[in-house]
Parts: sequence; structure tokens; C-alpha cells
Amino acid sequence: MEIISQHKCFNGLQGFYKIESTSTGLPMTFSVYQPPQARNKKVPVLFYLAGLTCTEETFMIKGGAQRYAAEHGIMLVSCDTSPRRTGIKGAADSWDFGHGAGFYLDATQQPWATHFRMESFVVQELRSLIINEFPALPDRIGVFGHSMGGHGALTLALRHPEIFKSVSAFAPIAAPSHCPWGQKAFSNYLGSDQSQWAQHDASALMRERKTPFPDGILIDQGLDDQFLETELLPHHFEMACWAAEQPLTLRRHAGYDHNYYFISTFMEDHIAFHSKLLNK
Amino acid sequence: MEIISQHKCFNGLQGFYKIESTSTGLPMTFSVYQPPQARNKKVPVLFYLAGLTCTEETFMIKGGAQRYAAEHGIMLVSCDTSPRRTGIKGAADSWDFGHGAGFYLDATQQPWATHFRMESFVVQELRSLIINEFPALPDRIGVFGHSMGGHGALTLALRHPEIFKSVSAFAPIAAPSHCPWGQKAFSNYLGSDQSQWAQHDASALMRERKTPFPDGILIDQGLDDQFLETELLPHHFEMACWAAEQPLTLRRHAGYDHNYYFISTFMEDHIAFHSKLLNK
Repeated sequence: MEIISQHKCFNGLQGFYKIESTSTGLPMTFSVYQPPQARNKKVPVLFYLAGLTCTEETFMIKGGAQRYAAEHGIMLVSCDTSPRRTGIKGAADSWDFGHGAGFYLDATQQPWATHFRMESFVVQELRSLIINEFPALPDRIGVFGHSMGGHGALTLALRHPEIFKSVSAFAPIAAPSHCPWGQKAFSNYLGSDQSQWAQHDASALMRERKTPFPDGILIDQGLDDQFLETELLPHHFEMACWAAEQPLTLRRHAGYDHNYYFISTFMEDHIAFHSKLLNK
Repeated sequence: MEIISQHKCFNGLQGFYKIESTSTGLPMTFSVYQPPQARNKKVPVLFYLAGLTCTEETFMIKGGAQRYAAEHGIMLVSCDTSPRRTGIKGAADSWDFGHGAGFYLDATQQPWATHFRMESFVVQELRSLIINEFPALPDRIGVFGHSMGGHGALTLALRHPEIFKSVSAFAPIAAPSHCPWGQKAFSNYLGSDQSQWAQHDASALMRERKTPFPDGILIDQGLDDQFLETELLPHHFEMACWAAEQPLTLRRHAGYDHNYYFISTFMEDHIAFHSKLLNK
């Protein structure tokens, strides 16, 4: 693990790191905020998955989460949104697919399947590294994210409930099988078999479950979000939670858009939500 | 005034704007955060001056100040750090001089004097625009900033105490006549006459004053700041405040560096400091 930089922040340590990833076969960058409490004991961990075009820096720079993580004694972990410099033709041509758009799944179709393995990277490799190299409690791990990362948070939590004890999202792509961003990603990464898509679609996954998170799921959504009705479709997930008897707090906020100015406004509530479940 | 974008944030409005500046003779971009209180009444205004290479976005994205501004009912204003696309040969060649490095003064030497007029832009043009176009209290204006912008905050407040009622800084360039950044900027913008430099050097200015800010000045400085001993030199300003009988709270923080991870850590204290003086 290579240290790129470390900065004191709210009396904790904000770090940026790089590893040679076995999951993706390429260097992967990630970021960790250790709260002050981590000097003396192991603390819960909250993974943040960022959206299209973002990197491991976005959340740590724009989210304003460190203050609340320091208050609650929670470690924050974020990572890049895909492998980079894959050498795949066309991988850098779109802002919503390829580089910066890994969708937190393991691609099954070439040329993507070799490197685009973000589910394995996050759930297995990065999680193991955090547990082994940082003062992290292995059985107190939560996940949240924004947009494509909200999709990632919901789907990884639903696919690995034994790992993730709490889940929330900001403006998630809640039903990717039904929106252009998801259809473009799934058809390229997973192929044309839509039963495979359903395994990475939060609304489809939820319909197969029975109250997977009995303590609830928190989602915040801005009503002036330009992607709300074309790409995000939270009502699909709301309906699926109803069918699965999954408690869901889906807050729709007038006037807020898809930006980190929206995310930072409600960050305190999300950290408190996870803290209540991870610190109990 | 052209609206570039507006985003709801902490129940207030984060906006980015552009004008054709008469001061610089070029388009200038700036940002305003209006707290929720500004819907119904005029509120105090706090100008933030950013550091080398920054833009009008930096503080609004990285500072985490909107939460505190919303709590205290204070409007935040930031601006770009220089005119851009000036067409001056070499203006984009250095990261510490020219574009992105206006040093908040009016240059007297060509080719800079025509466009590099950031003091007039901030103190006269932008201030007037804020008072006229936003719900701002004209006699409740404070200023703070970081690094080159800390220099700007201190010098503009000392040069215009009738305008700025409160002043604070993060890691300011406190004695620019005595450091490479300042010497490069002053010799090019102001020429070789060091008596002119003294009119834009916070430590030199303070020595000419007598308790200009009786309610005190707040400065935060990280002790792991890589620029502390070569460029920032806060002990010069500390000594000048002593000579001028100017109350100064200069807090030196172990472990913190020059980054916004440092700034955001102490942002709440600065907003509270200005609020106490501007809201009284």
C-alpha cells in the first residue's frame, strides 16, 4: 500500500492511498478518513461509493463528512469509480460508461471483464485491506453513496447483507434496468440477458428479499434533480421496499438538485443514521 | 450579471455568477451563498479570498462553510483569484504569479496594470454589486481568506477599515515583502520601490496603525504547513500586532498542513468569530 498523502482533519487523519489491485489487475486509488477515536481503538467503517466521473477524492473534498465522522467515531472509506488506464478502446470516450463508471459490479463481458471488477474490489479486496491495515471493526461496516454510488451502496448491501450492517443513499440510480445509464452499463458489462441485470438492480433485488435491513434504509432525493425522472427512478425502489416489507425512509426535498451542495446538506443525517446502527 | 448556476444548500442558495468587470476590463466570476435568513431580510456579508491557483469555486466546494453561514445568517462571497485570459505573455506560465495569483492589489506596472486590479474589483466593484443585487447589509461586512487570500484579507481590511468590520485568516502570507511568493508578485505588479510594497504587506501596514481592530483578529496556522517558514511568516505579523497594540488570536495547530482539510476543521470558529462582530 502506497501512501499518496495524509492530512490532519478534525483531529483525525485524512489519507489517500494506492495499491496494485488483484481484483482489477491495475493500480487502484482510495481514501480513508480515520476519526480521532481510531488512535486508541478499532472503530466502525462506512464505505462511500461515488457517482459517475468521480474519484476517490470527490467525497472527501466535497462531502463535508469528516466533521460528523469525527463526532461519531466512524472511519470513512472511498475509492475510485473504476480502474483507469485500462487500455480498452473507447473506455474513456463516454462520461457515463467505462472509466469513471464501473457501476460497482464485476463485468462478465469482454473487453470489460478483465479489469472492470469493482464489486470484488470493494467488497473483498478493499474491505480486507481496511480491516487488516487500519483500526477497523470487521463486523461493523456500513455503506452509502451517491447516484451511481447510491446504486452501488444499495446493490452491494442487498447482495452482501452479511457484510454491510447499514445502508443509505443520496439520489441513487434505483432501478438501473429501466434507465439509459443503467441499460448502457448493464448491456456492455453484463450482456443482453436481463436476468443478470436483475442481480445488480436495487429494485429487482429488493423484490427477492424479505425485510433484509429491519432497522431501515435512508434515502435522500432532491426534487429539482435533473436526473430524477429519467435516470434515478426512486419510486421503483420505494415500491419494491413495500413489497419486501423493508422499512424505508425516502425523503424528497423541494428545491435540491443532484449536486454535492445537496449531499453536504444532509450528510449529518446519514452519518448519524449509520452511527446509530454501527455503534450500537 | 449572468447566472452560471444556482443550487439549494443548507436551505440557502449557492450561486455562481459572472460580470463584465469595469475594474479589470475582463469577465470576472464570483460566488455567493445566501443563507436562509436572506429570504426575508438583509444579512451581514463575509468575503472569502482564496489562495494561489484557486477560483471562485474552491471555497464553496471545499470550505464546508455553508452550514455555519446558514446557522449564523451570514452571506458568503468569494471570487476568482485574478482576471483570466488577459492575453499577457507569460501570465499563465507560473502557478504562483499571474493568472490565479492576483494578490488582491491594483498593479501599477505594465503589462499587469491594465487588468490586474483585484483590490478595486473586490473592495469597490464586487462589494457594490453585492450590496445592490443581493440582500446585504452594507455596513456589516467582514473579510477572511487563506494563504494569498489571507494576505488579501489582512491587507484589504487594514487599508479599508471603514469597510471591513471584521477580519480573520487561515495560514496567511503575513509578510509578503519577506518571502519569495510576495517578492515575485510585488516586484512585477508594483515595481522595485519597496515603499509601495509596504502598502500591501500586512505586517508593514499593521506597524503603521494603532489598534485598528479593537475586537481582535483571528488567525489559524498549521504547524505542519510546508510553507510556514518560507512563505507565510506569521511571527512578523504577530510582532507587528504587538507593536500596534492590536489584539490578535494566533492559534498554532500541531499536525495540520496548508490544505482545505485544515481550513474546514476550523471554519466553524471563523464564521462564529465574524458572526459575533457582524451580528452584534
